[in-house]
Amino acid sequence: MKSGTILLSHGAGGKLSHRLIQDVFLKAFKNPFLEPLNDQAVFPSPGKRLAFTTDSYVVSPIFFPGGDIGKLSVCGTINDLAVGGATPLYMSASFIIEEGLELEELAKVVESMAKTALMAGVQIVTGDTKVVEKGKADRLFINTAGVGVIPDGVDVGPSFMEPGDAVIISGTVGDHGVSVMRERGMITLDVDVESDCAPLHELASAVVSTGFVKAMRDPTRGGLITTLNELALSSGHGILVKEENIPVKEEVRGVCEILGFDPMYLANEGKMICIAGKDGAKDVLKAMRKNPLGKDAEIIGEVIGERSGKVLLETSLGTRRIMEMLSGEQLPRIC
Amino acid sequence: MKSGTILLSHGAGGKLSHRLIQDVFLKAFKNPFLEPLNDQAVFPSPGKRLAFTTDSYVVSPIFFPGGDIGKLSVCGTINDLAVGGATPLYMSASFIIEEGLELEELAKVVESMAKTALMAGVQIVTGDTKVVEKGKADRLFINTAGVGVIPDGVDVGPSFMEPGDAVIISGTVGDHGVSVMRERGMITLDVDVESDCAPLHELASAVVSTGFVKAMRDPTRGGLITTLNELALSSGHGILVKEENIPVKEEVRGVCEILGFDPMYLANEGKMICIAGKDGAKDVLKAMRKNPLGKDAEIIGEVIGERSGKVLLETSLGTRRIMEMLSGEQLPRIC
Repeated sequence: MKSGTILLSHGAGGKLSHRLIQDVFLKAFKNPFLEPLNDQAVFPSPGKRLAFTTDSYVVSPIFFPGGDIGKLSVCGTINDLAVGGATPLYMSASFIIEEGLELEELAKVVESMAKTALMAGVQIVTGDTKVVEKGKADRLFINTAGVGVIPDGVDVGPSFMEPGDAVIISGTVGDHGVSVMRERGMITLDVDVESDCAPLHELASAVVSTGFVKAMRDPTRGGLITTLNELALSSGHGILVKEENIPVKEEVRGVCEILGFDPMYLANEGKMICIAGKDGAKDVLKAMRKNPLGKDAEIIGEVIGERSGKVLLETSLGTRRIMEMLSGEQLPRIC
Repeated sequence: MKSGTILLSHGAGGKLSHRLIQDVFLKAFKNPFLEPLNDQAVFPSPGKRLAFTTDSYVVSPIFFPGGDIGKLSVCGTINDLAVGGATPLYMSASFIIEEGLELEELAKVVESMAKTALMAGVQIVTGDTKVVEKGKADRLFINTAGVGVIPDGVDVGPSFMEPGDAVIISGTVGDHGVSVMRERGMITLDVDVESDCAPLHELASAVVSTGFVKAMRDPTRGGLITTLNELALSSGHGILVKEENIPVKEEVRGVCEILGFDPMYLANEGKMICIAGKDGAKDVLKAMRKNPLGKDAEIIGEVIGERSGKVLLETSLGTRRIMEMLSGEQLPRIC
């Protein structure tokens, strides 16, 4: 079954669809909620407050250094739950496949999803497959949705932010963006940057347990500055960050200088922005750095009582400027 | 905002993405769970047992008689929850848009989703938007995922099926398939068949409350026969249906004869197959017919103790033959 290409009949709901489900999806995702293959998965409610999220993934190319569209789709949904303070538990996976995709490539993506989900303790419990004619999609698009539970006592969100809170980033920014550029052949230099694509639920849980976390976000599409703008807008406060404190890998900085990109606007897929109460900032930083995914964490700025809804960047020269969300498109189909 | 076309920047996560979310999505779907625009929606757990489902929609064209891709995407997820005995409550909506789609068309689809969700008491609480380059998708693909609650005491599923149970269909088959063929210009006759696209949660709840329902399924892609095959496989029993009892509109029969399709394999988007205990079959039929969406309901056959996993069709001449799932593709991108 794993050789050959995807045909329109694989999406028709008939014999080939069923064989694809059995041989590729069920084999990789195997769990008691998925196995009945009903139109819906049924599970006991895991707690009082649930978190629910979805994202579609259209990254091109579908394989890149450090990951692939499958790993990305599982990490993305895990991370959207984790930054809400939730423990990710159940996930759906839906595939839109362009006719002609190699079955072997699909299987590789699916196995990558299964591996990532297993590592994170998440079960893929329901799904769907559609196939469109050649030229009507671009190889493979994946949607995942996820359900998690918010443990009792955990309350995070931009509404808790206050002036004086510290702004912490869990590591270097721009790695995912540069890894995709590398795979696209946009970079002629020999750079060794891999995507940071990773599930952040353990890091999130570790920082939340310090008791000092006000809000978390993962700075994906639009990068650090866009996500800080969202936090500023949602909280109604200003945010001031110091450029020299923002961790950026040398190779990433180099590539960005040559190609005219700003690493602060490049997508990350395994980083977290954490807003922490002033008195607890060092504890949160320490908790982050204990986790391999947070080893390069830095306090990069603070929430301020002025410039409501805006993000200010203080350069190494001490000047300040407002950093807005991008108005154009920096790098399409980065996730 | 509602004039113009979709640009790549609408999917970049920056200013245009935010404006699209505010002016199109938030305006249509407005509810307190969506409004914080966090990466995840948080809601109180609605009960002890939850149902979770997802489907992607790639129907072409995106508007057809009786519906559009938006209505379809909301009904489809509602129905996948409803046939599991669940009350649909929360939904996600994720859009993959081809650059160049008219904003007006997107808004029309989104309004159709909002209207259908409102009617069904479902809230669209989280979502995502991606834009791909012209030629890399076909106008608009939508994914919806849904969460519902299974009321205490409700237990349905193929494992409850027994020989002797009645097989009931809630109305005429093949309407959706023919409506899409009509919109594609495949039919030169003047036929007035609309898609049956409709949310089935009230019909499902009405039949379940009779206490005689063993299992339910909505016969979408692959049609009545494919879905009966799934029920036969999952239950381990055989299913015998009488051709003459299967309701088919005259126009649908006519179109199928001319074009060489079988209405029993054509997709439906507002029909339900219900397996009911023998003694309660008439009660279930009565409950169905009271609902406008079940007015043409018929008992079409029974679960049998032989031919495990197979579907038998008894023709009007009294001969019986095995009806398998389709092995090819009858009509691509029907949903």
